[in-house]
Amino acid sequence: MDQYLNKYADKVPEPTLQRLPWYLSTIKLMKEKGEAYVSSTQISKQVNIEASQVAKDLSYVNVAGRTRVGYDIDALIHVLEKFLGFIELHKAFLFGVGSLGGALLHDSGLSHFGLKIVGAFDVRAELVGTQINGIPIYHIDDFEKVMADNRVNIGILTVPINHAQEMTDKMVAGGIKAVWNFTPFRIVVPEDIVVQNTSLYAHLAVMFNRLNFIQ
Amino acid sequence: MDQYLNKYADKVPEPTLQRLPWYLSTIKLMKEKGEAYVSSTQISKQVNIEASQVAKDLSYVNVAGRTRVGYDIDALIHVLEKFLGFIELHKAFLFGVGSLGGALLHDSGLSHFGLKIVGAFDVRAELVGTQINGIPIYHIDDFEKVMADNRVNIGILTVPINHAQEMTDKMVAGGIKAVWNFTPFRIVVPEDIVVQNTSLYAHLAVMFNRLNFIQ
Repeated sequence: MDQYLNKYADKVPEPTLQRLPWYLSTIKLMKEKGEAYVSSTQISKQVNIEASQVAKDLSYVNVAGRTRVGYDIDALIHVLEKFLGFIELHKAFLFGVGSLGGALLHDSGLSHFGLKIVGAFDVRAELVGTQINGIPIYHIDDFEKVMADNRVNIGILTVPINHAQEMTDKMVAGGIKAVWNFTPFRIVVPEDIVVQNTSLYAHLAVMFNRLNFIQ
Repeated sequence: MDQYLNKYADKVPEPTLQRLPWYLSTIKLMKEKGEAYVSSTQISKQVNIEASQVAKDLSYVNVAGRTRVGYDIDALIHVLEKFLGFIELHKAFLFGVGSLGGALLHDSGLSHFGLKIVGAFDVRAELVGTQINGIPIYHIDDFEKVMADNRVNIGILTVPINHAQEMTDKMVAGGIKAVWNFTPFRIVVPEDIVVQNTSLYAHLAVMFNRLNFIQ
């Protein structure tokens, strides 16, 4: 814990952090349509979440609304983007340039949400030394050396499942503080390491199952 | 509701469907290591979820274990893959060939989990008529015509947020039954349409927020 500690951060529940981007995109649309002010009631109607919940979620964000008028829309957009970390660029390394890993390297859109992939790692000789979308691909054996030249906290995990844990251990040993896990494998990390699981396959499973009703 | 109705499907809770792919990947690894049988206790230890929960989740899947021995590992892998819908190929269209949409078209790995993107739609003249990864890109105006030639239930939504709802309405009107929503916009659909939200940006927001503690 040092001077970078955000004293409010520990109070923000994960569901709130997941709903705030919905509000942000809705507010951006309202701005496009010419609105200058927005109330939690208006947001509530758009995103179909109770107004009291919207107001509570927004209370974590340091922005003041005016009675009967609501929030200044430009100020709210700026404060939300800042709060969510979308303005500051966070550097990341990607581990495993397979099909999904390569696809993520192609997605420049992540930089609009604060994530900049600055390097990727793999073991295959035909990939090492090449670039995808301007992002250099290194051999995993050079991880420590590359890490020494870059202050990178985030590692994106897109290796095959049989390497998921081993690669996670290597990332953490090398100084990675947050693992964005795209594999369907449940990785184990020390307590102070942040993990976010994005399982495309789990979402597919739910979708396929629910589709059985209506086909 | 017709003869394709899976009479057990409505009983499978979404968290179970999200955990089953974890068990599947763990079991596959155990098989690689030479195991022939696996118990829910063993799975439990690997994925760090209580054995009673693992057993309950597996009870939705039609597979019989043997006392003291556990499940035949090949049979369990096959039954799980089938149950999760990863064996049968489900066709999908993708809507919006921007940065993320284009990236998903590059990800051939989705086909190992039962999803085959057979076409994509956009409005930009420079894209229409081209292919990415062998997948043809059509003009959105041709959606009905292309849909008539393909039996496609799943639509992947990767348009900018200001087109998310309008495009969803168009997809549903054209016969799409399930929307895999990658936009940070909360779309509204009729009751009988399946929606899965995969918000990469929400996961980023959580990760950035949690990182504030340990930087």
